[in-house]
Amino acid sequence: MNALDLIIKKRDGLELTKAEIDFLIDEYTENKIPDYQMSAFLMATYFNGMTEEETFNMTMAMQRSGKSVDLSLIKGFKVDKHSTGGVGDKTTLVLAPMVASLGIKFAKMSGRGLGHTGGTLDKLESIRNFNVNLSIEDFIDQVEHINLAIIGQTSEINLADKKLYALRDVTGTVPSIPLIASSIMSKKLAAGADAIILDVKVGSGAFMPNETEAIKLATAMKDIGQKAGKKVTCVLTNMDEPLGYAVGNSLEVIEAINTLNGRGPKDLTELCLTLGSYLVIDAGLETTLEGARAILYEQIKNGKALEKLAELVKSQLGDVDYIYHPELFDLGDIIELKATKSGYISKIDSYKVGHASMLLGAGRETLDSDIDYSVGIVLQKKVGDYVYQGETLALLYVADKNIEEATKILESAYSYSDTQIDTKLILNVVR
Amino acid sequence: MNALDLIIKKRDGLELTKAEIDFLIDEYTENKIPDYQMSAFLMATYFNGMTEEETFNMTMAMQRSGKSVDLSLIKGFKVDKHSTGGVGDKTTLVLAPMVASLGIKFAKMSGRGLGHTGGTLDKLESIRNFNVNLSIEDFIDQVEHINLAIIGQTSEINLADKKLYALRDVTGTVPSIPLIASSIMSKKLAAGADAIILDVKVGSGAFMPNETEAIKLATAMKDIGQKAGKKVTCVLTNMDEPLGYAVGNSLEVIEAINTLNGRGPKDLTELCLTLGSYLVIDAGLETTLEGARAILYEQIKNGKALEKLAELVKSQLGDVDYIYHPELFDLGDIIELKATKSGYISKIDSYKVGHASMLLGAGRETLDSDIDYSVGIVLQKKVGDYVYQGETLALLYVADKNIEEATKILESAYSYSDTQIDTKLILNVVR
Repeated sequence: MNALDLIIKKRDGLELTKAEIDFLIDEYTENKIPDYQMSAFLMATYFNGMTEEETFNMTMAMQRSGKSVDLSLIKGFKVDKHSTGGVGDKTTLVLAPMVASLGIKFAKMSGRGLGHTGGTLDKLESIRNFNVNLSIEDFIDQVEHINLAIIGQTSEINLADKKLYALRDVTGTVPSIPLIASSIMSKKLAAGADAIILDVKVGSGAFMPNETEAIKLATAMKDIGQKAGKKVTCVLTNMDEPLGYAVGNSLEVIEAINTLNGRGPKDLTELCLTLGSYLVIDAGLETTLEGARAILYEQIKNGKALEKLAELVKSQLGDVDYIYHPELFDLGDIIELKATKSGYISKIDSYKVGHASMLLGAGRETLDSDIDYSVGIVLQKKVGDYVYQGETLALLYVADKNIEEATKILESAYSYSDTQIDTKLILNVVR
Repeated sequence: MNALDLIIKKRDGLELTKAEIDFLIDEYTENKIPDYQMSAFLMATYFNGMTEEETFNMTMAMQRSGKSVDLSLIKGFKVDKHSTGGVGDKTTLVLAPMVASLGIKFAKMSGRGLGHTGGTLDKLESIRNFNVNLSIEDFIDQVEHINLAIIGQTSEINLADKKLYALRDVTGTVPSIPLIASSIMSKKLAAGADAIILDVKVGSGAFMPNETEAIKLATAMKDIGQKAGKKVTCVLTNMDEPLGYAVGNSLEVIEAINTLNGRGPKDLTELCLTLGSYLVIDAGLETTLEGARAILYEQIKNGKALEKLAELVKSQLGDVDYIYHPELFDLGDIIELKATKSGYISKIDSYKVGHASMLLGAGRETLDSDIDYSVGIVLQKKVGDYVYQGETLALLYVADKNIEEATKILESAYSYSDTQIDTKLILNVVR
C-alpha cells in the first residue's frame, strides 16, 4: 500500500477500504506521508467526495490518532455540544449549566476564537482567574462531581485532525462535507459523551452557505455518530444575524448571565431551550419536547441554572462574584453607531459584525494575537426591527484599536427594506 | 496575491490571469510556494482543466524559469523533435541524420530512459565514447557546423518543469492534458527551434490511452506552439506494439543503422519518413508530402543520411567504427522465446515488452540504476504475423539479471486471434 495509489484511487472516484484509510491517516499522523501527497488527496476528496462508509472510517481513524477521554466510569448520562462557529454565540455558557443543573453530565472541550468567530474559552477567561487548562483526569473528576466542566482541547487529543485541519486551511480544502464531518465528529467521539448536540450554522460567515449543504453535513455527522453508537442531533440555525445582541468576550458572558436570569434575548433563550430539550430527551428525563422545555425553563426560574454556572466558575478557580455582579466586568468606552436612514432592518451580516469586533480587539487575527476582553459590540436593533434615522443601531465598546475601520465595517453589515422581514432561527433538525 | 486564493480560484473553475500564473510558477520555482500548496493546485487543475489561454501562459512561465537556448544566430531553418515516450522508439537516431543531411538544422536535447521506455541518450551512449554532455555553446556551435547535435537537457533549462514534474509524479497529477502540454512545450520552446515535430504515442504503455485524448493533447500543444510563433505538427502513432523489432540500447542503435542503410523495419522507416516530411515542408524545401518523402528517401539511398549519423558520432567523440561495423556492439547471450500456440498475433503489449527489457538491465527502475547496453529484446514476429506453435517469437539478449521474470512478462505481452489484424501506425496528424 502506498499513498500515491490511494490518491489515484480517490482521484478516479473509487471507494477506499477501511485498511486504506487507516493507512493514510496513521502514516500521515506519523509524518510518513508528506503534506504534498495529503493535500493532493484532500483536493481529490473535495471533488469526488466520500461514501458514508469512507467518511465513518476516516472519522474513526482520526479519532484514535490521539488520546481519548474515557467518561465510562462516570455514572449517569454524559452529553457534549458543538457549534460550527457563530458570531455572538454564547450558547454553551447558557446551555451547559441549564442542562447540568438537571443532573445530566455536561463534559465539554472547547476551542479558542479565530477570525470573526469567538471561542468559548476566551469568553470564560474574561471571568477573572478562570482556568481552562485542566488535565483530562481533573476534567473527568469535575464532571463526576458537579456535572459540568468546560476546558480547552488538550493537544493529545486527535493528532490527525490538528495536522489535517492546518493543511486544509492553506490548500483550499476546507469546504468539503466529508472532511468537515469527520473533523468535527472525530473530536466529539474522542471526547466520550453518550449524546452530542450539534449546532450547524447556516448563512453569511458560516461554514455552510445554505440549508441544502447544511442538511448534507448534518446527515453525514448524524450517520457517523449513530454508527459509533452515539445519539446525535443536529440543529440547523440561521446565521443571517448574530445570536443575541452582544458580541465580544465580557459582553457575551454578561448576556449569558442575563439569559440564565430569565432576561436574555429571545433568540438566544429559544436556541438554548431547543438544544437542551433534545439532550433532556436523549437522557431519558422527558419524552416530549414540550416537557423537556418546561423542566429546562424551570431551572432558569428557580435560579438553579445560574447557580450551576457559579459552581463551574468556582470549581475552575474563577471569581464567582462576576456571576452575581456582572458590573464587575471591565468594559471599554462606548461609541454609538447611529442609523443613517430609516427602515426595517432586513439583515445584519454576521461575518462583518464578527470582523468589526475582532478589529476592536475582541478576537484574534492570527493564533498569536492578544485578546482584549473588554471590547466588542452590543446591537440595539435586530432583523425585523424598525429603525428611525438617527436612532442608535449598536454600541461599540472600544479600547484604542481600529475604531474607525470597525465602525465602517459594522455600518456596512446592515441591510434595510421597506417591509418587515420575518426571521426564523431554527431552520431544521436532523436526528 | 497569494497561493491559497489561486488554488481556490482554480478549484472553483475560474480562469487564472497571466499575472496569477506567473506568480504561481515564479514563486514555486523559487521555493516560496510550498509543495503542498502546488499539489493541491495541480489536483484542482486535474479536475477543472485549463483554458487555452491559461495553458499558454503556464507554458511561457515555465519556459522562462530557466535558461533558454538561443539558436537565432544560426543561419537556416532549425527543427526539433519530441516523442511522448515509446518502446523500441529509436526514431530520433534515424530521423535526425536524414533531415540534417538535407541542410535542415536539427538541434535536439534528449532525455534518459526511466521505467519501461528507453532514452535516446542511453542509446547513443552504447556507442563507445559518445559524449552527450555538451555545453549549450558547444551544442549551438555543432548545430551550426554539421546541422546536427543531440545532447542531454542541461539542468539550467526549465527549472519549473523539473520541480513540477517530480511533484506530479508522486501526487497522481501526471495525466492532465494542460499539464502534459505545458510541460512538453515549455521544454521545446526553451530549446529554440523554428519547427517542432511531436510524436504522440497512443495505446498501452503510452501517456495517452486513446485517440480522443491524444487529439486533445496534440491540439493543446499545437495551439501553444502557434501562439509562440512556432510551426508545430503532432503525429499520433499507434503504440499497440513496440516500434520496429529491437528494444534495448545497442540493439536499437543497430536497428537504426540498418534503417539508414535502407534495411530497416517497415513501421520505423514509415514513421521516420512521415515525421521528416512535415519538417521538410516546414523548412520550405518541398511543398507536398510526396515530394518531401522522395527527397528524404533519396538521402537513405545515396548514403548521406548514414554519413550524417557518422558525422554526429565523430563530432561528439564517439567511435565511428560502430556505425559502419555494427558487429562491434557487445551483445548479451541469446535466449529464444518460443510460441506456445499457433495463431495470428493481435497485440504485443508495449508496456510489458519495455518492462521485460528493463528487467534484463536495458532500462532504469530508479534514476540511479545502471544500464547494461548489451541486453534487450528483438521481436521476430509483429502484430498481423502468423506464428506456428514452437516458432521463435522473440530473442532475449540477456546478461545475468531477471532472466526468468523477464521471459514470463514478455510471453504475457502477446495476444492472439484467429484472423489477421490490420495495424495502422499513423493514426492522425494535427498541425
